[in-house]
Amino acid sequence: MNRYVLSVYVENKYGVLTRVASLFMRRGYNIDSLTVGETENPEFSRITITLRGDDYTCEQIINQLKKLHNVKKVKLLSDETKVERELMLIKIKNSSENRNDIMAAAEVFRAKIIDYSTDYMCIEVTGEPSKINAFIDVMQPLGIVEICRTGAVALERGSEILV
Amino acid sequence: MNRYVLSVYVENKYGVLTRVASLFMRRGYNIDSLTVGETENPEFSRITITLRGDDYTCEQIINQLKKLHNVKKVKLLSDETKVERELMLIKIKNSSENRNDIMAAAEVFRAKIIDYSTDYMCIEVTGEPSKINAFIDVMQPLGIVEICRTGAVALERGSEILV
Repeated sequence: MNRYVLSVYVENKYGVLTRVASLFMRRGYNIDSLTVGETENPEFSRITITLRGDDYTCEQIINQLKKLHNVKKVKLLSDETKVERELMLIKIKNSSENRNDIMAAAEVFRAKIIDYSTDYMCIEVTGEPSKINAFIDVMQPLGIVEICRTGAVALERGSEILV
Repeated sequence: MNRYVLSVYVENKYGVLTRVASLFMRRGYNIDSLTVGETENPEFSRITITLRGDDYTCEQIINQLKKLHNVKKVKLLSDETKVERELMLIKIKNSSENRNDIMAAAEVFRAKIIDYSTDYMCIEVTGEPSKINAFIDVMQPLGIVEICRTGAVALERGSEILV
């Protein structure tokens, strides 16, 4: 199974997110994450989708996305040319036993402690999704309470532009 | 118009994102951003929605979300008790005229330049959505090429836990 990152440029109209989400549901494609956010142009939004599968499935998905109403452009971002980032907020149990381990890991991962109370800490981590996963693995034995991930966003390096 | 942040805990089943997106489409509610990501439990995902409206509309939306299949919990996060973050990748024109302005703003906003070529820079910014908006305002006259925002994620401070 390969991992693919798609950048989908859509008109900012009611229903376009539903159509995109429905496509994945109807076909049973498995997506890892989906983010939708404003762009440099208020009339358009950019949807970033990460999914796992093979080249054939990915090509099918791209073709079907292109046919959807209000979808302007779909692009597969290549590993060599993209910059990809994700943000996570994670709440961990704070106790005298685990505090040093948490703080040391946070420092190495350049994570920020953004809330601190007697019993809990909330930490913000930014990076490639694989880095986020690695941070979760380190925190797992220390007592994860809640996780909130944005899903990945990505742009192409250098002068490559989606539209 | 007030701004509301909803945290929606859903079962990780096909179709749940579509049902949530459809609700907003059918009713014509205007959402600013929507993110969906994995949680501490692989069977559940967390959807964070930011929207604008009045208290009555927000209450209606919460009630309708609660009725949807596979939706386990819906919570309105209050401004006083939440920590909220968003990530943006932004590509800017790189030239000898605007370079100093870009680098100065990036330093003040604690943004990271994650790609640099002769003609373009790609910058990563993390913070509250209002900070992201402020950074866009500063970059606007300098030549924004592409913007990719994750949308907001949020957790409650201290010991408050969604489920």
